[in-house]
Amino acid sequence: MLTIGPYEFNSRLLLGTGKFESFEIQKEAVDVSESQILTFAVRRMNIYEPSQPNFLEMLDVNNYTLLPNTAGASTAEEAVRIAKLARASGLCDMIKVEIIGDEKTLLPDPIETLKASEILLEEGFTVLPYTSDDVLLAKRLQELGVHAVMPGASPIGSGQGIINPLNLSFIIEQATVPIIVDAGIGSPSDAAIAMEMGADGVLLNTAVAGAKDPVKMAKAMKLAIEAGRLGYEAGRIPRKRYASASSPLEGLSTI
Amino acid sequence: MLTIGPYEFNSRLLLGTGKFESFEIQKEAVDVSESQILTFAVRRMNIYEPSQPNFLEMLDVNNYTLLPNTAGASTAEEAVRIAKLARASGLCDMIKVEIIGDEKTLLPDPIETLKASEILLEEGFTVLPYTSDDVLLAKRLQELGVHAVMPGASPIGSGQGIINPLNLSFIIEQATVPIIVDAGIGSPSDAAIAMEMGADGVLLNTAVAGAKDPVKMAKAMKLAIEAGRLGYEAGRIPRKRYASASSPLEGLSTI
Amino acid sequence: MLTIGPYEFNSRLLLGTGKFESFEIQKEAVDVSESQILTFAVRRMNIYEPSQPNFLEMLDVNNYTLLPNTAGASTAEEAVRIAKLARASGLCDMIKVEIIGDEKTLLPDPIETLKASEILLEEGFTVLPYTSDDVLLAKRLQELGVHAVMPGASPIGSGQGIINPLNLSFIIEQATVPIIVDAGIGSPSDAAIAMEMGADGVLLNTAVAGAKDPVKMAKAMKLAIEAGRLGYEAGRIPRKRYASASSPLEGLSTI
Amino acid sequence: MLTIGPYEFNSRLLLGTGKFESFEIQKEAVDVSESQILTFAVRRMNIYEPSQPNFLEMLDVNNYTLLPNTAGASTAEEAVRIAKLARASGLCDMIKVEIIGDEKTLLPDPIETLKASEILLEEGFTVLPYTSDDVLLAKRLQELGVHAVMPGASPIGSGQGIINPLNLSFIIEQATVPIIVDAGIGSPSDAAIAMEMGADGVLLNTAVAGAKDPVKMAKAMKLAIEAGRLGYEAGRIPRKRYASASSPLEGLSTI
Repeated sequence: MLTIGPYEFNSRLLLGTGKFESFEIQKEAVDVSESQILTFAVRRMNIYEPSQPNFLEMLDVNNYTLLPNTAGASTAEEAVRIAKLARASGLCDMIKVEIIGDEKTLLPDPIETLKASEILLEEGFTVLPYTSDDVLLAKRLQELGVHAVMPGASPIGSGQGIINPLNLSFIIEQATVPIIVDAGIGSPSDAAIAMEMGADGVLLNTAVAGAKDPVKMAKAMKLAIEAGRLGYEAGRIPRKRYASASSPLEGLSTI
Repeated sequence: MLTIGPYEFNSRLLLGTGKFESFEIQKEAVDVSESQILTFAVRRMNIYEPSQPNFLEMLDVNNYTLLPNTAGASTAEEAVRIAKLARASGLCDMIKVEIIGDEKTLLPDPIETLKASEILLEEGFTVLPYTSDDVLLAKRLQELGVHAVMPGASPIGSGQGIINPLNLSFIIEQATVPIIVDAGIGSPSDAAIAMEMGADGVLLNTAVAGAKDPVKMAKAMKLAIEAGRLGYEAGRIPRKRYASASSPLEGLSTI
Repeated sequence: MLTIGPYEFNSRLLLGTGKFESFEIQKEAVDVSESQILTFAVRRMNIYEPSQPNFLEMLDVNNYTLLPNTAGASTAEEAVRIAKLARASGLCDMIKVEIIGDEKTLLPDPIETLKASEILLEEGFTVLPYTSDDVLLAKRLQELGVHAVMPGASPIGSGQGIINPLNLSFIIEQATVPIIVDAGIGSPSDAAIAMEMGADGVLLNTAVAGAKDPVKMAKAMKLAIEAGRLGYEAGRIPRKRYASASSPLEGLSTI
Repeated sequence: MLTIGPYEFNSRLLLGTGKFESFEIQKEAVDVSESQILTFAVRRMNIYEPSQPNFLEMLDVNNYTLLPNTAGASTAEEAVRIAKLARASGLCDMIKVEIIGDEKTLLPDPIETLKASEILLEEGFTVLPYTSDDVLLAKRLQELGVHAVMPGASPIGSGQGIINPLNLSFIIEQATVPIIVDAGIGSPSDAAIAMEMGADGVLLNTAVAGAKDPVKMAKAMKLAIEAGRLGYEAGRIPRKRYASASSPLEGLSTI
C-alpha cells in the first residue's frame, strides 16, 4: 500500500500521459499498467489551453487520482500559479512541483523547487516535488513537510536509469515520506532496481509512451515494479566476490 | 514459448533445487515460480546417494521437466558418467553439463565442457552446457549442436548479476539455439536485464533459495522474467545523453 | 595552467593535509606530489586551537598557496566566521566553503553553501565552495561569482571515485570557472578519469594520507593527474561497440 | 621490472605500431612512450609483403624488443607458420599468438590459441598469447608454459576499457606468469585501472594511434601506467559506503 498524504494506492506505478501517439494507445496503456495515479502537464488540460485535445475525456477520471505537474515553470512563482489553476479545475489537489533550471538537461532548480514547495504546503496542497538526487535537498524538502519526494534517476526522457544508486539509497534511508523515483527510467529493470532499493514507487512516461509497443511496455513496467517490490520484501542474497556452490562439492563417492 | 530440443515451455525460468532450508519451502517456491524446468545435481538423487533425502518425492515429477546437472565433475569423463547415471533413472534425457575448473571461483572449464558436450550429443542427449561468457566458446558449443547455451552472468552463488553485458549481447546476437543465462543472478532486476537483452531464459537457484523469504523471491523472479521478456518484445526507448521533455516546453501562453 | 581568481598554478593537484600519520610523512608526500595548493581545516591551525600541533611549521609556507576550509561548520554563519578567522592570520585569502549537512554521509548542505558563498564573495574572499554534483547548484554558485566550483565525486573519504560521470560532465560543460573535483577520489585512475573528462583540477586527501604508502601514492596521484590532463588534451578515441583491427585483415597472400 | 621469459624491461607499456597516420608520428609516439616492446603484424613486415612500407627502417631496432603478432591467422596452423616466418627474419623470437575467431568482434578463438601456444612452446618460442578474459583459459595457457598471458579488456580497437574487472582480478590472482592487459584500452585511466589491479603491463595501439594527438596520448599512457603501478604498490584506501572525515568533526570550541 502506497500512502501519499491522505491518499492510498495499491499500485506503485505513477504513469505520465505525455508523448503517446494517440489517445487510444494511451488509454490502453493506462489500463494494462493498472496505475492509479496519472500525471499530466497542466498546460495540456484544454480547460486552460483550448487548442490542446483533452486526454481526460478519454478516461473515466473517477477511477484515477490525477497528479498535475507544473512543467513549463522556471520559477517558484510560475509553479505556484500553475498549481492553483489546476486545483481550480476541481479535479485534484495534489501537485507535482516541476521547475526546470536548464533547458538542455531538464534538471530541476533546487532553490525554486524548495521555495515553491514551501508556498504550496502553506496553501494546503498535497505536494510532491520533482528534485535531483542531491541527498540534502531531499532532506530539506521532507523537513518542509512535502508529502513525497521524487528524485530523478537520470535526466527526463534520457532512459539512462539510475545513475547514482548511492545517493538514491541515502535518500531512501533518511526518508520520512514516500520516495518516488521520477525521470530517467528506460527499461523494466530500471524500475525494478528502484523498487529493490526500497523506493515506494516509480513515476515514468517516456519509457512507455516512446516504446515501440507502448501497451506491452506498460504491462512490463507494471510487472517489473511488482517484481522489484517483492524482491525488496523478500530480502536478496548478499553480493559475494567468490562463488558459492548450489550443490555440495563433496560426497559423490558412489558415482 | 521456449523451445529446447524437442521440448516446449511456457515459462522462461529454470529453477535450481539446491540450498533450500526445507523441502516444504522448496515445494512452495517451485509452485509460485511457475517454473517448468527443475535442475538438480545428480549426486543429490537418492537413488545414487542413499544418504541424501529425495526432493523428487515431494514433487509430482510429471508436472516438470527435470534437468539434472553434472555438478561435481571436473573432467569430461566424469560428466559423461554422471549424465548416463541420470538418464538410466528413466526420469530425464536432458543434461546440464557443468564441469568446474576452479574450486574458488566455480568457473567452468571450457575445454572439458566442449569435450563432454560433444560426447553427450553423440550419445543422443539433449545437451545444455553451462559455460563462461566467452563469445567464441559459446559459438563453438552451438556449432557442436548443443540444444541451448548457458553462459554465466557471474560466479555461481555470487549474486553479482551480469558483469559483462557486451559479451552476453554478442552471444545472443550470434545465437542459433536458445541462450539461458545461468549463474550469478542475485535480484529480480538482474533477471529482467538478461531477458531485456534478448536471452531466452534464466536459470537461477541461490537467489531464491538463499533469500530471506524464498517463496516471495520465487514470485518476484517469475514476474521479473516476464517483465524483462515483455520489455524486450516491446522495444525500449534509446538511451540519450540529454533530456527530452514529456510535456511540450512552449505554449503556456494562456496561463 | 590552472587559474583561480588572481592565482596561477602549474599543478592541478590540490592536496589536503589531514589524517597523515606524522608530519614527516605529510611533508614528504606534499613534496613528491608537487602540489602548490594545500588545504587544511582552520580548526587545525594552532593559532586558534593551541592544543593542535602546527603542521604549517613543517612547511615553508611561502612555497604554497594555502586553502583553508570551513570544516566543522553546519551553517553559513559558522562558515563565514571560520573564514574570517583564517584570513585574520594573514596567511591566505582563499577559502574552501565546506558546510556539512549530514554527519553520516558528510554531504554538503546546498542552501547554506550558497548563502555562505554569497556573503564571502561580498567580503572580498576568493571563494571555492565544496558542493554536491547537483548540476543546477553548481550553476547557481558560478552565477554568484565563486572562483571555482568543487563538486564531490562521492562522499568524503569513501574512495568510491566518480559515481555520476554524467552530472560531472554537465557541470564541466556549463562551467565558466574552474571545476575542481573534490572528495571521494580513491585511486590514481579516479583522478585520471576526472581530468580526462575536462576537470581543471582534483582535490584529495584521504586517498593519499590513508594509503599504505602515502608518499608513493602522492607520486601516483601527481602522475595520474598529468596523465588525465594530457589524455583530455590529446583527444581520446571514441568508444565503439564492435572491434576495429589494428592490423589490416586482408593481404596476407605471400605467407 | 617486467620479466617475460629471458627478457627484462623497465617499461610496462607494450606499444602496437599499426594505424599511425605516418611513420614520423609513429616514431615520435614510440619515443615519448618510452616503451621497450613494440608489437606489429608479421604481415606488415615488408620482407614478407614487399608492398608494405617498412616501419622498422624508421626505428633503431636495437633499442627495442620486437614482438611480432600472428594477426590474420584464424587457425593454429596459420599462426604457427606466421610465427616461424617472423623468427626466420632474425629480428625476434618472441611471438604474440593472435588467432581471431570472429571478424565482427575480433575476439580470440580459445581452442586454436591453446593449440598454437602448445606447438610454439615446443618449438622454443617465447610465447605471449592474446586471449579472452576467460579465467580457466588463462589458467590452461599458463599451465602450458606460456611466458605471459594477455587477456583482452574489451574488443580490439573498441576503447571500452576493462569491462569485466572481476575476471581480470581472478586471472591476476592465479597468475604464475606476467599478465599483460591487451586490447580495448581507450584512455589513460583504463590503463591505470589495469595496473592498479596488479597487471604486469598493458599493450595498446589504437588508443594512441587513433587519438587526435597521438604523441601527447603516448605520453599520457606512459604516465598513467606508472601512476597505476605506483598506486598498486602504494596500497589504496578501501572503498566505504559512508563518508569519513579528513578533519576531526569535534573540538572547534575556541572558534
